[in-house]
Amino acid sequence: MKTLTVSLGERSYPIYIGSRVLESGELLSRHLSSSQVMVVTNETVAPLYLDRVRQSLDGKQTAEVVLPDGESYKSIESAMVIFDELLVRKFSRDASLIALGGGVIGDLVGFAAACYQRGVPFIQIPTTLLAQVDSSVGGKTAVNHPRGKNMIGAFYQPQCVLADTSTLDTLADREFSAGLAEVIKYGLIRDFEFFVWLEANLEMLLGRDADALTYAIERSCINKAEVVAEDERESGVRATLNLGHTFGHAIETGMGYGSYLHGEAVAIGICQAADLSRRLGWLDTDSVERIISLLRRARLPVMPPADLDVDRYLDLMAVDKKNVAGKLRLILLEKIGRATLPMAVDLELLRATLSEYDGRG
Amino acid sequence: MKTLTVSLGERSYPIYIGSRVLESGELLSRHLSSSQVMVVTNETVAPLYLDRVRQSLDGKQTAEVVLPDGESYKSIESAMVIFDELLVRKFSRDASLIALGGGVIGDLVGFAAACYQRGVPFIQIPTTLLAQVDSSVGGKTAVNHPRGKNMIGAFYQPQCVLADTSTLDTLADREFSAGLAEVIKYGLIRDFEFFVWLEANLEMLLGRDADALTYAIERSCINKAEVVAEDERESGVRATLNLGHTFGHAIETGMGYGSYLHGEAVAIGICQAADLSRRLGWLDTDSVERIISLLRRARLPVMPPADLDVDRYLDLMAVDKKNVAGKLRLILLEKIGRATLPMAVDLELLRATLSEYDGRG
Repeated sequence: MKTLTVSLGERSYPIYIGSRVLESGELLSRHLSSSQVMVVTNETVAPLYLDRVRQSLDGKQTAEVVLPDGESYKSIESAMVIFDELLVRKFSRDASLIALGGGVIGDLVGFAAACYQRGVPFIQIPTTLLAQVDSSVGGKTAVNHPRGKNMIGAFYQPQCVLADTSTLDTLADREFSAGLAEVIKYGLIRDFEFFVWLEANLEMLLGRDADALTYAIERSCINKAEVVAEDERESGVRATLNLGHTFGHAIETGMGYGSYLHGEAVAIGICQAADLSRRLGWLDTDSVERIISLLRRARLPVMPPADLDVDRYLDLMAVDKKNVAGKLRLILLEKIGRATLPMAVDLELLRATLSEYDGRG
Repeated sequence: MKTLTVSLGERSYPIYIGSRVLESGELLSRHLSSSQVMVVTNETVAPLYLDRVRQSLDGKQTAEVVLPDGESYKSIESAMVIFDELLVRKFSRDASLIALGGGVIGDLVGFAAACYQRGVPFIQIPTTLLAQVDSSVGGKTAVNHPRGKNMIGAFYQPQCVLADTSTLDTLADREFSAGLAEVIKYGLIRDFEFFVWLEANLEMLLGRDADALTYAIERSCINKAEVVAEDERESGVRATLNLGHTFGHAIETGMGYGSYLHGEAVAIGICQAADLSRRLGWLDTDSVERIISLLRRARLPVMPPADLDVDRYLDLMAVDKKNVAGKLRLILLEKIGRATLPMAVDLELLRATLSEYDGRG
């Protein structure tokens, strides 16, 4: 088992990475001071892991909420289901929540924990690669709004994260690939050496080799934890974690949540950000090809959906939350291994990138 | 104009108290860095003050949301109305919100500001006595849930508070009295001298004498600001601000939001807390009578509704958020001017207090 720390002063917390850490009653009880614990999970994850977590909570007053699976359940309505159950059970402000599932469950439960009685403790047990390397680290919680992704949320840190690599054995290939998009992102924005390692070891990862996975998750979490420790509330460098996300969110919103997985949309967005970086003279054609090639090898889409035209795309991007006072600002790449801070981009260049991809998906 | 500071480190903010401070474009612009500003108010307040605030926002991109008046609109649905409008207008994470109204508007808009894109700045312009002395100070924001008051919320501080005493001229008598309940509370929990001043000056306050009002608001805000500075997240002494509130919330929830004003329910709750304190041997009968008498003179109810029986009352109190791990804990009075920290109380004594009042409302 590896232990990392996300350093945020009094809000610091550990990430435990390893096989079967979710069964560790010792780890859970070390971070649970509450006698009342609610586990929130979904219908896919519950049959696989809920029993094991339940056994680790022996002696606590427990409750469970099992939601349907999917991004469309990352909603204010799902948060209300959690609040209802907490109140029916008379769970107090000293209760704790456990998020057992992927990014949807993690973001939703983190938001519910942030808001229930103005904040109760929670623990993340991410069961997808995406959640282990991204959404469970850094305290961004949110639900979606029909008009935009993650529009309603809070910065709220968990008590700890248990990233159990053995849960990835049961993960569908498509979900696994979506997680790789964020893994590759860390190499692109700040860790060239890791990018090269990924090029050399991608087949090992796709084969779910335990050692390769542990290394990739650890290195991803270290990268993210360093960025978050430097800029918890995203006033500066944290924004670089959003490489590809403004493009990607537009795809997710425009196509309806759930038709594209978050990581898939981000993969496409990374390609568009790379293309725009090339147009600005920063990336050469070879680097762009190298990025696209690695994403393709990870079995990720690299072209946007055919039915999203340029004007609709721009409209969807304009409400993305990364924009300062109405101006569209994007994260781009100076080179592989170094991202820019958010910057206003020339609309014509952006149109050129969107047109390049328009209708080719 | 009086200026107080709520001292919370980097989250510190000023409270400006005085006649016509809401018209001060200078004060507003000093605390508004955003070019996009949304004013949220209600149908009662809008015709009185919205124009004046709008004029102070000259040069900004503004939007307005006018909600119906009443506690029943302090809901997640109203928050969604605000989010919808922010998104339709493409307001970014650098937008600011202004809460123009009483406690319902303040709590709701504070919560919306805490959650929109994970937090945008907001300014409080409280237009009721209750909001000026209580809900606009301290950063507690929330909406109600059908099963309990303030169950969904956040600790989130405003940029500043503009407490305009001239807005109280138009306040209905019943609303004004409800505000006095919280004013009297400050005397009871930590400021005996202020309690004595209130006994001597209550008629001046009821006559809305400007100097008496300014003094009472200032002294209330100083008391609250001191408590909040000591304990922002209510792990200790801040809980004393909830004197009478666990009883009161049970009345509000049990009778349906809106049938009792918050301050009215708190006034009844204060009487019950005083009665229970007497049963524990802390308050003498004279002190209890003195408290009840001042509340009566402030034209506040001092008996609970007849149709709330003891068992229903206990059930409603048990979900109140002041309870630690399922145990009912109440704020009581050691004497006039000193409250206890939340303490578990003997169920039989509590039943005696509730029965004392049962069916007499």
